[in-house]
This record gives sequence, C-alpha cells and structure tokens, in this order.
Amino acid sequence: MLSAADNEMLTRSGPDTPMGQFFRRFWQPVLLSRELPENDGAPKRVTVLGEALVAYRNTRGEVGLVDSKCPHRGASLYFGRNEDCAIRCVFHGWKFDIEGKPVELPNVPPGSQYHKTIRLKSYPTREYGGVVWAYMGPREPGGRPMPEVPQLEFGQLPESHRYVTKKLQECNWAQSVEGALDTSHFSFLHMPAPGVPSNANDDAPADEKRLRWIREDPLPLFSILEHEVGFVVGGARRADGMSRYWRTAQFALPSHSTTPSTFPGETHFGYTWVPIDDGNCWIYTYAWNPDRPLTDDEMAKFKNGHGVIAEVDENYIPIRNRSNEYLIDRQMQKHINFTGVRGVAEQDAMIQDSQGRIVDRTVEHLCASDAAVVRFRRKVLDGAKALMAGIEPEAPFRHDSYTLRSGSWIASEGVSFEQVMLERFGHPAGRVAGSNGDGVRR
Amino acid sequence: MLSAADNEMLTRSGPDTPMGQFFRRFWQPVLLSRELPENDGAPKRVTVLGEALVAYRNTRGEVGLVDSKCPHRGASLYFGRNEDCAIRCVFHGWKFDIEGKPVELPNVPPGSQYHKTIRLKSYPTREYGGVVWAYMGPREPGGRPMPEVPQLEFGQLPESHRYVTKKLQECNWAQSVEGALDTSHFSFLHMPAPGVPSNANDDAPADEKRLRWIREDPLPLFSILEHEVGFVVGGARRADGMSRYWRTAQFALPSHSTTPSTFPGETHFGYTWVPIDDGNCWIYTYAWNPDRPLTDDEMAKFKNGHGVIAEVDENYIPIRNRSNEYLIDRQMQKHINFTGVRGVAEQDAMIQDSQGRIVDRTVEHLCASDAAVVRFRRKVLDGAKALMAGIEPEAPFRHDSYTLRSGSWIASEGVSFEQVMLERFGHPAGRVAGSNGDGVRR
Amino acid sequence: MLSAADNEMLTRSGPDTPMGQFFRRFWQPVLLSRELPENDGAPKRVTVLGEALVAYRNTRGEVGLVDSKCPHRGASLYFGRNEDCAIRCVFHGWKFDIEGKPVELPNVPPGSQYHKTIRLKSYPTREYGGVVWAYMGPREPGGRPMPEVPQLEFGQLPESHRYVTKKLQECNWAQSVEGALDTSHFSFLHMPAPGVPSNANDDAPADEKRLRWIREDPLPLFSILEHEVGFVVGGARRADGMSRYWRTAQFALPSHSTTPSTFPGETHFGYTWVPIDDGNCWIYTYAWNPDRPLTDDEMAKFKNGHGVIAEVDENYIPIRNRSNEYLIDRQMQKHINFTGVRGVAEQDAMIQDSQGRIVDRTVEHLCASDAAVVRFRRKVLDGAKALMAGIEPEAPFRHDSYTLRSGSWIASEGVSFEQVMLERFGHPAGRVAGSNGDGVRR
Repeated sequence: MLSAADNEMLTRSGPDTPMGQFFRRFWQPVLLSRELPENDGAPKRVTVLGEALVAYRNTRGEVGLVDSKCPHRGASLYFGRNEDCAIRCVFHGWKFDIEGKPVELPNVPPGSQYHKTIRLKSYPTREYGGVVWAYMGPREPGGRPMPEVPQLEFGQLPESHRYVTKKLQECNWAQSVEGALDTSHFSFLHMPAPGVPSNANDDAPADEKRLRWIREDPLPLFSILEHEVGFVVGGARRADGMSRYWRTAQFALPSHSTTPSTFPGETHFGYTWVPIDDGNCWIYTYAWNPDRPLTDDEMAKFKNGHGVIAEVDENYIPIRNRSNEYLIDRQMQKHINFTGVRGVAEQDAMIQDSQGRIVDRTVEHLCASDAAVVRFRRKVLDGAKALMAGIEPEAPFRHDSYTLRSGSWIASEGVSFEQVMLERFGHPAGRVAGSNGDGVRR
Repeated sequence: MLSAADNEMLTRSGPDTPMGQFFRRFWQPVLLSRELPENDGAPKRVTVLGEALVAYRNTRGEVGLVDSKCPHRGASLYFGRNEDCAIRCVFHGWKFDIEGKPVELPNVPPGSQYHKTIRLKSYPTREYGGVVWAYMGPREPGGRPMPEVPQLEFGQLPESHRYVTKKLQECNWAQSVEGALDTSHFSFLHMPAPGVPSNANDDAPADEKRLRWIREDPLPLFSILEHEVGFVVGGARRADGMSRYWRTAQFALPSHSTTPSTFPGETHFGYTWVPIDDGNCWIYTYAWNPDRPLTDDEMAKFKNGHGVIAEVDENYIPIRNRSNEYLIDRQMQKHINFTGVRGVAEQDAMIQDSQGRIVDRTVEHLCASDAAVVRFRRKVLDGAKALMAGIEPEAPFRHDSYTLRSGSWIASEGVSFEQVMLERFGHPAGRVAGSNGDGVRR
Repeated sequence: MLSAADNEMLTRSGPDTPMGQFFRRFWQPVLLSRELPENDGAPKRVTVLGEALVAYRNTRGEVGLVDSKCPHRGASLYFGRNEDCAIRCVFHGWKFDIEGKPVELPNVPPGSQYHKTIRLKSYPTREYGGVVWAYMGPREPGGRPMPEVPQLEFGQLPESHRYVTKKLQECNWAQSVEGALDTSHFSFLHMPAPGVPSNANDDAPADEKRLRWIREDPLPLFSILEHEVGFVVGGARRADGMSRYWRTAQFALPSHSTTPSTFPGETHFGYTWVPIDDGNCWIYTYAWNPDRPLTDDEMAKFKNGHGVIAEVDENYIPIRNRSNEYLIDRQMQKHINFTGVRGVAEQDAMIQDSQGRIVDRTVEHLCASDAAVVRFRRKVLDGAKALMAGIEPEAPFRHDSYTLRSGSWIASEGVSFEQVMLERFGHPAGRVAGSNGDGVRR
C-alpha cells in the first residue's frame, strides 16, 4: 500500500516529474533497430517519457532522435525530409544535423545570430543488441560524463544468439514491472484449468515438473539480494522429496527484469519497460542463449509469440489486447487453462491492464508474496527522492553490472538464497563471469 | 427552471453524491435475469450509479454482484473464474463467495489476519420479474432492516403474462424520466405529419380515436395525486361530445413510471431508469397483462420493438440511436410522421438525447403542461436533501405500495381526477386491489 | 514569439472571449448556399465560433440561423420540422420564425406572457457569392446600425465567373491564416524534390518561370502596406536579369486573405477562415476571374481539388487529412515533390495541422520572412484589445473596402512596393477600380 503521493510519484514520468527525472538518468530503448531499416528512410514518431520525438536513420546510418517540432514555427519534423545527414523541415527548409545543430536556415539572412543560437533538441543514441537506445538526461550529471548503455547480456552476443522484439502494454509501466517481479502469480495466472494436467499447456515455457511444483505450492518463500544496480529475488517452492525448487528474477534500475524459469542450457528471457505516457508503455522483450545460436524452431516460435513474447502485429501491438478483451474464451477458461486467454505474455498483459491505466495503490492489500513488489517500489522511489534532494544515482555508471542472469535451480532444503545463486550462476548476484566487481551489497 | 446547484444535485448519482445516496436506499435493476443464463457462466461487467461491478451466477444459481477489483492488487474479477459458488481472481487465486467473504487466499500464509479481515465489496441481489435487482445502500438504514424489492405488478404475474427488456439511453436518467412523465408531448412527438390521418402510424400503441383526441388537444389539463411512494399524474383532453379523455401515468421513487395509454383489458407498460453514469442510463422496460398471457402477436412485436419497447441489438443498444441520428428520414418527416424517426421509443430517445448528456435546467422555460416534470424534480430533490439532513426515506419500506397501474379513461366533464382513478382502477392512487393500505396522501 | 496570454487571446474565439467578441463584429460565412439546396429542406447543424446552431432554408427561401436548443426544454431543433416559414420543435411543437419570434406555442395557455417574452436566439443572415453569411454581434455596435457583408470581389461577379467551396482544417484558425500570409514557404513546401525540374509538378498553379524564381530565392524581401481593412504584403525575389518577381497577398480583418500567384488575366483565389471551435476551422475558398467565365477545364480541376482548393468528400472533409497522414508517400517525397503529399491545399493543411491543434507561440523563433505573420497577429490582437477597452472596430463598416486583389508582378530592381501595386492593380492597396476612397494608410 502506498500513499496517494507516492503512487503519483511512482507512476508519473513526464519531463518535470521526479520519476521522469530519475528515468532520464538511464539509457532507454526507444526503437528496435529494424524499425529504421534504411539510411535516409522515413522518419518515425516516437513518444518516450511523455515527450513527442522523431527518430530517423541518416545518410551515414546513424540514428537521430530529435524534438518533433521545428524550432522556427513548430511544424512537425515527422513530415520532414531525411537527407544529406540531416532532417529538414518541409515548411521553410530548416535543416538540422543529428546533434540538433542547424545545417541550413534558408529563409534566415546570412548575418543573423540564429545561425549560431538556434538548436533543435536532440538526444544521444546508441545501437546495442538490435535496439536503439537514447540518453535523455543531463550531459554531465553531477559533473561526470554521461553514463553508457547498460550491458544487458543479450547485447553482447552475436545476433544469431538472440531474438529481440517489443510489445505495447496499455497501462502504466510500474504495475507491469510489478507483475514480472511477482513470480508467485505463476501458480495461478499461467496454469492449466483445475483438473487439467500441468503439462497440457503447449505455450508454457517449462516442463511438466516445474509446472507441477509451481502449481502445487502457491506459497513460495521469497528472499531478496540487493546488488549494485538493483536486486535479485528468489522464490523457493517445495519440489520432489525434500528439495526446493528455486525461481529467481532480476530487477535492474530503473525498469529491467529477467525471468525465473531458465534451467542451465536453456534460453534466457528479459524485458525493459519504457513509458510512452503514464497510461501506456513499450515492453522491449529479449530471448538469448549465451551458449549457442537460437534454433530455427525457437526463432519460429518467437516470431509467432511464445512465453513472454507476445503475438504482435506489424506495429508491435499485441493481437490479443485490451480492445478485444484478449480474445478471452470462456470455454477454454473452464476446460483448458486458468484464464481462457492464449499466451503467457497475453495473460500478463490482461491482468496488468485490468488493474486500470494506473492502479490505485492506496487500497491494495499486499501479502508476503509481494516482497519483490514492495522492494521495487522502494528502490525507484528512493532513487527519485534522492535525486530531488540533489543526489545523483550511481547505478547508471555501473553499466557493466547489468550483465545479469536469472533462472531456475533445485537445491536441498535449508540452502540459502545466496548459496543457490552461487551454485546456479557462479555469482551471488547472478553477474555473468568476466564482468567486473562483485556487485552484491550485503 | 432549476438553480445550477439543484440541477447538479438532480443529475449526479455517484457514490458520494446526495442523489447517489438517495438512489442507494432503493433496490435497482442491474441486469435482466437472462443476461446470466447459466450457473458458473461468464461474469458480466455492470456499471451502476457510477460504480464498476461484476455480476455472476454462481454454482447454485444465485447472482453475485461484487466490486470489479480484487482487494489484493486491484486486478479485474471480470476476467475471474466463476466456480464452486465463488468468484476467483486469476492473478493469485483469491476466491470470494457471493457475500464477499474470502473462501481461499492461497498466497496468504495460514496465520494471517487477512483471512478474517479481507472483504470483497458485494451487494445483495434478488431476482424478481425476470430482472436481477441489487440493494447498494446501508444494510440497516436508520436502524431498520434493509427494505425489499418494490412489488411492481409485472413481477407478481406468471412469466407468460409479461415481456421484460431494457434499452440504453445515452443521456442523464432524470431528463429521460421527465420525458415519460410529461404526457403532453404525445400531441406532437408521436403524431403523424400534418395532414396525415391520425391512425396512419402502425407503430402507435393506441387506436384512431385516442390518437385523434391527443392530437386535437395540445393543452391537456393536468392534475396530480401524491401517494406513499410517488404520485400519479392525469392529463385531461377534450374528447367526443362533452367528455374528457384522461391519460394517467405513475411515478414511483426514485425512477419508476407506468404509461398512460392502456384502456381496460389492454396490456400495461412501465419503465425503471437506472443510471450507469451521469451521461447514460439503462431503461428497464416492461409490458404486462394482469388478465391473460401476452399473445404470440404481442410477443413478436415486442421482440422487434414496439411502442415504448425499442428495437435493440444483442447488447440492448437501440438500433436507431445517437450515433446514427436515429436513422432520421426527412421525407418520412415531411410526409408520414412528425419526426421522421421510426418507433415511439426511438422518438423519445432522440428528443431526450438531443437535450444534451445533461440538460441545462437553468435556461429552460417551463409551462403548465410541465406540472409532472416539476413535481418529479421536487420529489427526488426533497428526498435527497432530507437524507443529507439525516432523514431516511420511507418509500423504500413500502414495497407493497409499488403495485401500481395507470392508463386511459373517458369521463364526463367536471369529474375529478380522484374520481377518474377510482372509476378506472378501483383505487384513487391506482393501487392494485389486494395490496395493503390506501396509499393516497391528501 | 507571443506571450502565453497573447497566444491564448489570439486563438480562443468562444462567446465570452476577446477574440470571439472581435470576430462577432464581422459577418462570417457559415454555410455554402448549396448546402441548403431547397426551401423547407432538412435543417443543418452548424457550429460557429464555439456556438452550436441550426441553419435552415425556409418556405420563402430565406436562411434562418438559430440556437440549436429550443427555449422550452432544450430539445434540439436540428430534429425539428422546417415548415410554413418557421422551425418547429418536435417535442411540444414550439414554432419560431426566422427572427426567433414564436409563431405558435401550442402547449402554452393563450393568456401566458410567454407568447410575448419567449425568443429563440437567432442571427441575421445574407447570401452573397454563393455563401451564407451571418452576423453574430450586437445589433447596434457602438450605437450604429450593424455593418454589411464585406464586398469580396468574387461575390460581385456572375456565378459563371467564380467557384466557391470550403474545406475543413483540423487546427486553430490563426495558424492557418499565418500559413497563407507567409508566402515565403512556397520556396519549400510546394516545390519539387531537389533535382527535379521546377515545372514537374502538374498541380502547382503557376508556370515554370515563377516556380524557378520562387525556388531559387528562399529569402524574399517583404514589404507591407496597411489599408482600411487590413494590409497587403509583398515579397520580392530575384528574377531573370536585374528584375524582381513580386508576389503580393491581402489580409482583411478578421480572417480573409487572397493569394499571391495571379498574373494579369489569370484566375484569382482567396480564403476566409471561420473558427468552428478552437481546434478546427472551415476555410471558405474562392476562385474567381473578373474578366471572363471560368473555363470548363478550370471548373473540372477545381471540383477535383487544384492548387489551394482541396480535394474534399461530400461533407467538405479533405480526402487527404490528419487521420490518414495526408496519404504521404515517402517515395514521392524522395523523388518527386518536397513533401510526398499531393496538392498545394493538402501540403498547407499538413504543415499547419502538424503545428498542433493550437501552436505554442511562446517557443517559436521568427525571422524576417515572418513579417506578415507578425503584422497579422498585431492587427487582430490590437483589435480585440481595443474592443475590450470599449473601442468598436471600424473595418466592419468599410465593407466596400474589401473588394481587393493580389497577385504576381515583375518589376525593375528598386521599384517600391507601392509602385508595384499601382502598376499591377491601378491602386496602391489593390482596391478594385470603382470602389470608393483610397484606402491606403500611410
């Protein structure tokens, strides 16, 4: 339960909000690289953190991300010409390079100060892992050079080892992050209908044993380990014999997560949430296998939606969405799965959307299984409040600490979470070997 | 003409409004029984008086009406599972019985207080006359046990004797009630085009004589008799010879009415308005014949829309509605009927919608024929204001006094309205014989 | 750049706003005459300056323009009956003549004061040049009789000499006026793509030379001459040899303009903007030739959209509009024209809409080529502010001074703007010979 003020702070991400300022200290995904397929191609409208922007790939293949409005009279650069390493407003031909400097202001007399003073707002971009990232914060936060793109593991692998996509989520970013960090809901939302065998669901990205253990223990015990850039949460359920089935998930500031199901050798999944406005967000979704290329079979599944990867249209809008009630089938709900909705991603979207555009956290009733939800809120609210007090966050400068994994493990009863992480990942916080530092805060 | 403050009070019915509180003292129709056709079937979204609710028919056939939001994290119970005499949230499996008590909170440790303290908001329901009714007020208003469902006559008859349906009205409830109580508008809105014979309109639920009398006297003289639960209004028009043609209509608190056209032996019609929000309402519409089953011919007409029963789609949205301008046909308006719109119900809907979502009563110019409109406003505003002052309304406890009829009668000139009611109904307020008490306030 | 307060004053035109009051001192186009094709035909909904009105052509062919709401109970007169030189509300038959006086109030007793006091709000109308004009201001502004319709030249010619239409513009009126007065944008917005010959665009209403001169000089020098009812702006570009290519455009209060391309003998074009609400306006668009009937070829082009005349549907909504991104074709933009959008009118609409429903003038960066934009704002803001101080505008009473022309001319270097106007039009302000007075303010 949050106060109304904290709920407001958590969920508002426009330019002048505390959380919006906090987000702007971190690099954000703003497009898939393949959404800008060619140099000098059509610009794209992009709304990020409540700001209306235009992205374009210039003549040299670099991505520009600029204010949608020309500084002259406010005409939209979306309708502009992308040419000669610049974007040109079609109203009066004002032309700007990727950094927002004027290249040509044809209706401005040569001697005018404008040639020196006019700037088009622009943000630095990088391409990493098939994703265009942008940094929308101050160029020298706290007097330091701006940070680098977080080194999520999928971005460090050859393209063959990953599948990267995105999906629109029609609710506030924070409640969707909460849905991912709260792994206790797997015992219900993604399960078969009562009486149906645990392995009856083709779409579930796990085998019968895991599904059975999840289903039979709706009261996992949660442990949390904080690290340099967030925390990892582990939920332990009773497994066969006296063993415990652990499912672990990462949270990295401000809005990254990895999923809990992966056994050694299996493919990993992760997401990054990027607010469009306060009632919608993009979820960038990644599958990657550090050990091998993804198989044709995996690729085919991912392209059609599988597990946390939604089935989407050409604009990355989920086929089963808010407007069509996720194509819920009440007979399927009665006889086949718990929701009557096809797809883990779609089941998540349905339940998160159903909380409302922004869930009212002043009337909720949290319980022990919401441990990670509570920790997530504290982390980001603390960060936003500290920044309001003038304290810059440290995490953006720990980009190497974002090479994180999570997944499943089976351990004996009594084994600590830290020990489980060490056994499973060789590192107590799930950091991939080879990355610097220890990273666990004790 | 009302003050802006009174117009606001009259038309706002949310939980925290005076009129909303007044309405909550009375049972409200919330669904047709046939909208929940089977036990353990799909839940339905229902918005009543500005509250978003979910209705379901449980394993025993009882109807639950509960908050749409799970008290845990606010996920929608519309997507929930209706099973084992309970509704279960699919997010974490929280399960509640029809009274809102938790049956199962699977992710809450056994010792938690939650098992005792958590409640899902729920409202008592009844089924009466093929309609699901709900009581959304305090369980012990003024220290008395809560009231019972108003005994509208159609509900006391065998199913064969009635037809029950509903229609969406896309404006505030109060102006639609006003349209029904103001029977003077029949002289215009529902008439043939000038020059067309009075009996040319197939759809009019009356014979040539009545239509002619209505048409030829646009200045009926109105009388009002108050009774225990509202009032009956009579309008007297000149008929053949020296006789008077009386048309009488009931108003019962807070939003019931019966229609004025019925001659002895003919089928009766009535309505109940239920605010969805302040710009839309459901009009539950009833046809009943106390003396005999409805004929096949009547049933067939009613199913396709007839008289005050609108032609509706499978969601009870009128086919001719605000979005398509009621399919107005200007040639029909010139040569056939007064409006160019087909159907008495649709003509009413058109003119009431056209006043705006909420009519501005500060700029109107009422006249003598608006007597019932004025009385209606006073009745409900007085009730709401009294309740604000702590005085509970008495009408909800007079459920037997709601067995009321109205209709048409021909009387000699000079006969009083009370005498007309006695002649026509055997009771000065139109109470059906066998119901208790006298009911007329003098 | 404007202050936020001035931007607000410039763009708000509702009944209680300074600019709304200023507009109401002038006659406004409210419909094309052909939108009311027959006597006693269907009424039309018209929203002008934020007021919801109903227009109808009565039995005698006169046009009534009245409040959409009946003064009795607020029912819409759009659904009313247009008959017997009056509009009749279908709710209770209240009937009003074209001046808003009650003809019949059938449910009001004969002795009631209502017969004397009730008035339906109505506005005087005129038909001039195939357009229905209305005057929505005080009947005796500043104690003088109300003004007359501005004598725009197209209205003084036989019907054969003109084509009159309108188009919806989905943004505030003022930024659209600015787009027309700023003739410097022709060097870009309406040009071929770079490398494509200047005469490759069939749709451009000018020949190769003019297009080449426009294209090759993006820095025209602007001069402005004020006159009794507004101003004329001239832009001089380098032409062949040492000559100058002048393009002149008229602005007449509060929202009339004529276009700059017309050479002697060619057809003229002009527009009048009428706010619907603050985010939409109608642009009445006129083509006329004072010397001869329009040719069949011209008429055919205009009907399909040509130059400043948009291609519209049967409701005068442009086919290429905001909702479909003006059917922008990025290949066309790369290889054929500057925008990838077909049609001068549509290119203008696109860029003006793209500034937002109301452009934020507090963040713009104007330059020398925006001289007419700046002057326009000053003229209308000064007028609105003077009126707030009790000073009635004089321009509405100078209806004869609205017979104005503008267009193209070639002059030697060093010739003054006033001399150019004299050479081209025989009058320094572009007044048509035969109209009274001089009209130029020096």
